[in-house]
Amino acid sequence: MTSTSPLRVALAGLGTVGAGVIKLLDVNGELIARRAGRPIEIVAVSARDRAKDRGVDIARFDWVDDTAALAHRADADVVVELIGGSDGPALTLARATLAGGKGLVTANKAMMAHHGLELAEAAEAANAALKFEAAVAGGVPVIKGLREGAAANEIGRVYGILNGTCNFILTKMEAEGRDFADVLAEAQALGFAEADPSFDIDGVDASHKLSILASLAFGTRPAFDDVATGGIRHVLAADIAEAATLGYRIRLVGIAEAGPKGLFQRVHPHLVPLSHPLAHVSGALNAVVAEGNFVGRLLFQGAGAGDGPTASAVVADLIDIARDEFGPPYAMPAAQLTVLPPADSGERRGRAYLRFMVADRVGVLAEIAAAMRDAGVSIESLMQRGASADGSVLVAIVTHEGPERAVAQALEKLRGSQSLAGEPLWMHILG
Amino acid sequence: MTSTSPLRVALAGLGTVGAGVIKLLDVNGELIARRAGRPIEIVAVSARDRAKDRGVDIARFDWVDDTAALAHRADADVVVELIGGSDGPALTLARATLAGGKGLVTANKAMMAHHGLELAEAAEAANAALKFEAAVAGGVPVIKGLREGAAANEIGRVYGILNGTCNFILTKMEAEGRDFADVLAEAQALGFAEADPSFDIDGVDASHKLSILASLAFGTRPAFDDVATGGIRHVLAADIAEAATLGYRIRLVGIAEAGPKGLFQRVHPHLVPLSHPLAHVSGALNAVVAEGNFVGRLLFQGAGAGDGPTASAVVADLIDIARDEFGPPYAMPAAQLTVLPPADSGERRGRAYLRFMVADRVGVLAEIAAAMRDAGVSIESLMQRGASADGSVLVAIVTHEGPERAVAQALEKLRGSQSLAGEPLWMHILG
Repeated sequence: MTSTSPLRVALAGLGTVGAGVIKLLDVNGELIARRAGRPIEIVAVSARDRAKDRGVDIARFDWVDDTAALAHRADADVVVELIGGSDGPALTLARATLAGGKGLVTANKAMMAHHGLELAEAAEAANAALKFEAAVAGGVPVIKGLREGAAANEIGRVYGILNGTCNFILTKMEAEGRDFADVLAEAQALGFAEADPSFDIDGVDASHKLSILASLAFGTRPAFDDVATGGIRHVLAADIAEAATLGYRIRLVGIAEAGPKGLFQRVHPHLVPLSHPLAHVSGALNAVVAEGNFVGRLLFQGAGAGDGPTASAVVADLIDIARDEFGPPYAMPAAQLTVLPPADSGERRGRAYLRFMVADRVGVLAEIAAAMRDAGVSIESLMQRGASADGSVLVAIVTHEGPERAVAQALEKLRGSQSLAGEPLWMHILG
Repeated sequence: MTSTSPLRVALAGLGTVGAGVIKLLDVNGELIARRAGRPIEIVAVSARDRAKDRGVDIARFDWVDDTAALAHRADADVVVELIGGSDGPALTLARATLAGGKGLVTANKAMMAHHGLELAEAAEAANAALKFEAAVAGGVPVIKGLREGAAANEIGRVYGILNGTCNFILTKMEAEGRDFADVLAEAQALGFAEADPSFDIDGVDASHKLSILASLAFGTRPAFDDVATGGIRHVLAADIAEAATLGYRIRLVGIAEAGPKGLFQRVHPHLVPLSHPLAHVSGALNAVVAEGNFVGRLLFQGAGAGDGPTASAVVADLIDIARDEFGPPYAMPAAQLTVLPPADSGERRGRAYLRFMVADRVGVLAEIAAAMRDAGVSIESLMQRGASADGSVLVAIVTHEGPERAVAQALEKLRGSQSLAGEPLWMHILG
């Protein structure tokens, strides 16, 4: 029998999401109590700076200086961890919370990617909840979608647009024909990108999320270290334009597949055909596709970040706990999660987009074409665009379907060539 | 403490979905047992014709001639109802199952639309599960998405593409420039549309689903009788072409809104702007959008019908029951569901597409324009296309935003006019 007394929450971290959770419970509290069967009440909060104005009244909650002490409060049933960071105070609090038998709700993708298995084991040992809907795709209930909605399926592939900052930048580059650095600077000025944007634009954040999704989808142990991670730093406005002429849009796609050859996980900019729903995911939205052996292709889409959406996911987890509806964090007991070896990307087959900036002189195209031929890469189309201000010429190639190893060999062969101005860009075409 | 003994299922109805459930449990049974914490086993089945070849072995299950008797089997924990029909044997079985304290899983949208409240009350009285994920949008976990994923939000609007047959027909008309009757005949030949297609193409099926979604989204009692229901029978290839020139696609959209003026529910063909994700939902797919006050716009998309996807949703419900994770069917106790009066559509403001087939003679445009002016309808654009084989001319108008009452008045004024060949078509523009 589920309790009807309030679910008492200790909240660690009062950034925009923490303030969002307080605001959400203020505004929707009565409705939530009806849906959850009992009220959800914050009893204590902790953050670095007590005096900071967060736009919400925190004077009514117990203030705790020592965040780790939240784990031991007798008047709290659940701790919400919104501190962030894979280790440090967040991990200390998470461990202590679960060890003490309290439930933990976290939005911390880095912590879950690095320590999810350990935390799941601790939660199961204590019969406590560990929930992390907000760690992936913000407000979009994709953890629930995989863990429960698609639970009847063997899932072969899960992929999606997992970083709103990158998608914002790419769609703005696309809409306005501007280059990466220019749009990034604007995004930073607007607060859509961090002062140090590397975590987002180099794909690390998306890789954290992908490793969590893969674990849930395939019943495998989280394997963040095996994600091949790339970002969008080297995508040019010219690449976006070339892709558009071919019927594609460029998106940073995280993709995970489980199969007889192991577990494949990659975050990389992809050319997405206009016929695919991910091509129509614009701005800071996130979207996740899961392919199940009975349900076919499921798509979940919505706001991937922001205080309101993220708070929505945090409180959805709290409602599940209030309803006493939580099981093993990864849907099945952590001890049953399997270990798959990382799959060799070289054996993957697909189509590739290759872009070279080359010197404008005789023989360059022949050199590139010869490298492709020698590696057995079959060219579907090749475009050369006239010289830019610095005299370099853009050559964009789309290959026929073939093994990635061949493309890697062709690029290796061209490495250090005097004909090339800078590194070639290799993007995959979403099939 | 949840049991680890098998969840025992009695299955009523062995059409394609029933056979799909058996097949799914055969193929994914081991995986499901790990995720659910215990096996899910069919113990008995019932259908009209025992001898029919369904492509699955049913000899291993107890055969029961009297479907209603499944409710009373001591060896079953849950009954899965896949008979269909709002009343008759399905309802008899559902009532008896819940009265006896067993869980019920159903894919029956008509029964839930008409009798959902009564069944929810019975389930709550018996502390039994009543789950119906498969009743809306096939394999897409949208019931779960609203009931749990978006549970922290006040939802203002829920809408979507809820009938795969209509979407299949509309997108085929769009792709091939063909007219409705022609494509319907092909869809029937291919088995995508019923011999009597009225339930689908006149919007009744989508209205059933919309009323279920509205109840979950708004915490209101199901109010199927208040859904304003329209279908796609009168949409011409020419309408689709006109919409395309304006940047829209035509979709049958079910839309529900709750507000101070009451509960608005309508199923009707809409012009959907290309910038909206529903414009990119093609073929037999379904998609549902929910707008929450914190999460913003959530989109769920996938296969809306078919044996595999629907079986996926049925078994997802069974997994929830096996995990002992079910609460009140409508998220909150049925006694707390509110009753909202139906909202007056006349007070709604929006933009409209109006298409007239008119006689090719002097003064017709003036007559239409005068009717619009007199009713206070402001015209944003007007297109007239040359005479067709029968001499009639197509006039398509897009209005500025304004009250629907004014459009209704203008059309009323034109009723019976000798200038019009047939009924005008009024479609709403999704805003």
